[in-house]
Amino acid sequence: MSNLTLALDAMGGDFGPHVTVPAALQALSHYPHLNIVLVGDRIAVGEQLRRHNATESPRLQLLHAEQVVPMTERPVQALRTRRQSSMRLALDLVRDGQADACVSAGNTGALMAMAKVVLRTLPGIDRPALVATLPTTNNRPVYLLDLGANVVCDSETLFQFAVMGSVLAERVGRRKRPKLALLNVGSEEIKGNDQVQQAAQLLQATPQLNYTGFIEGDGIFTGEVDVIVCDGFVGNVTLKTTEGIARLLLDQLRQSVKGSVLAQCLAWLLKGRLRKLNQQMNPDQYNGASLLGLRGIVVKSHGNADQTAFLRAIEEAMVEVERQVPGRIKDRLESVLLDKS
Amino acid sequence: MSNLTLALDAMGGDFGPHVTVPAALQALSHYPHLNIVLVGDRIAVGEQLRRHNATESPRLQLLHAEQVVPMTERPVQALRTRRQSSMRLALDLVRDGQADACVSAGNTGALMAMAKVVLRTLPGIDRPALVATLPTTNNRPVYLLDLGANVVCDSETLFQFAVMGSVLAERVGRRKRPKLALLNVGSEEIKGNDQVQQAAQLLQATPQLNYTGFIEGDGIFTGEVDVIVCDGFVGNVTLKTTEGIARLLLDQLRQSVKGSVLAQCLAWLLKGRLRKLNQQMNPDQYNGASLLGLRGIVVKSHGNADQTAFLRAIEEAMVEVERQVPGRIKDRLESVLLDKS
Repeated sequence: MSNLTLALDAMGGDFGPHVTVPAALQALSHYPHLNIVLVGDRIAVGEQLRRHNATESPRLQLLHAEQVVPMTERPVQALRTRRQSSMRLALDLVRDGQADACVSAGNTGALMAMAKVVLRTLPGIDRPALVATLPTTNNRPVYLLDLGANVVCDSETLFQFAVMGSVLAERVGRRKRPKLALLNVGSEEIKGNDQVQQAAQLLQATPQLNYTGFIEGDGIFTGEVDVIVCDGFVGNVTLKTTEGIARLLLDQLRQSVKGSVLAQCLAWLLKGRLRKLNQQMNPDQYNGASLLGLRGIVVKSHGNADQTAFLRAIEEAMVEVERQVPGRIKDRLESVLLDKS
Repeated sequence: MSNLTLALDAMGGDFGPHVTVPAALQALSHYPHLNIVLVGDRIAVGEQLRRHNATESPRLQLLHAEQVVPMTERPVQALRTRRQSSMRLALDLVRDGQADACVSAGNTGALMAMAKVVLRTLPGIDRPALVATLPTTNNRPVYLLDLGANVVCDSETLFQFAVMGSVLAERVGRRKRPKLALLNVGSEEIKGNDQVQQAAQLLQATPQLNYTGFIEGDGIFTGEVDVIVCDGFVGNVTLKTTEGIARLLLDQLRQSVKGSVLAQCLAWLLKGRLRKLNQQMNPDQYNGASLLGLRGIVVKSHGNADQTAFLRAIEEAMVEVERQVPGRIKDRLESVLLDKS
């Protein structure tokens, strides 16, 4: 396997270097072909390196950044005033070819805005999309996009999302001719708003994509399709609803086994399983979400990711580099558009 | 308590009179002030009455209907061709003052279209909305609307939904000054699309409503607010997502206790609780959904409702009659609009 280099925003997320540095060290020891550039405050990152008995090396470099993007800063503000931030410098490394991908657990809005400006979108892509996987009953996670990068989308944008999601499912998810659906309020052809209706027409006219029709909210989790496309408003509400309902159900199950000793044993038996389910229901927290449609790879880890979760985001970035996701999206889009013209 | 009369679409739903007739009989025996008109095929309904040793009486009348609205028929088609259907005649009874409310488990789209034409909307209301409750961690169900009656909504429509939802929460849910939120992709003021942004401004300028701001998908289930407003596209996807994820979680929990005998015993102990959770996660199936904003009361029971679920829908309609929901919506709207002018 050829070497690859990741730029990590070491300061991003709720725990900054406390999580990113040990996750980076773990990744380096797991993957001999991996190099990492830790971008962040020299002192804070250095302290964590020392704590883990690690030093800079050809495989582990430290790039000092004067600034940090606060978690609550508005994207436009961050874009204008945080040119020396760890997030921005990590993206610059990808743009300049010094890193193959960037991973950050920082401010999502700022990351999307900066990534769009620094890396720019692929030809034919108007807007990048945020994508993550959700669990299904048949254990084949489904790719859902957009998760909130674009609250308003026209049919052309939804079509581009469909191309990007299909490529990701094929290259990273190893699905052959991934089944694709549009999220809608009914599965009948007449249902939905104009954007969804028109996107359906575009997709039906594109044999390179395996478009199967509309799917409703309860169809997300059945595993009947591989990729589901919707605008960022609907996608974000869906993702957060999933997290909320999972928390409610697990909470109520815990409540319901209080009291009975036998039931407490069950709760104990189920504990690991409940934790795993809870993680699955928080996909962006657990596996990281990817920004698709850029001339570079950017993986967003959840702000309160722990070491394991941040390591997962690193691994996601590695796979996307190895499978050349942006290049494949560009190729697929070109072939689709060529066929249409 | 003064007498009240419900018109039941006896033919609606997957099981028609097999469910609606016994549910009606049960309701009549529970509530001495209740009268019911069963609207449906004379023979099919009569057969179910005989099976339950019941006959027509001053409290239980049968109104023959020649037609039934098929579950999959398009609303416009039903509107045009089903003027003698059980659904349509039940709505006519409400319009003519012969019944105080209508309950149907039939085709949702057809019911909404017919109800709008037959009963018409209240003054100041552009479109009726579909509303149901979702469970929360603090056991105070939250009212969510619109659930799919209107896939595209402008800010004015969202504002009207807020008024209607607040009145329902106050009158039926017994909440004092119900807390109201708009469903959005972030809780910060700058987030969301134009409709949501403008609706927020309208709500902030309306002291008669207890508007608390934006809420995200995971906030639906925390019980922090009483009423959540969104367009019918988002609401429908949210409701269906809730049902889907609940099914997935319960399925996976069942899978995870397979094998171990102890765990199986405990699963058996939890069975009732799991069923209850499952019902809560399917609110329109369990309690019925209400059509708000009409000059009359219409409750929609889920198509595959069993006797208990249909009885719940009957009870919901009774409470809405007793608490005079449409009149209160009209009053509230008038006072809000008067204050604004």
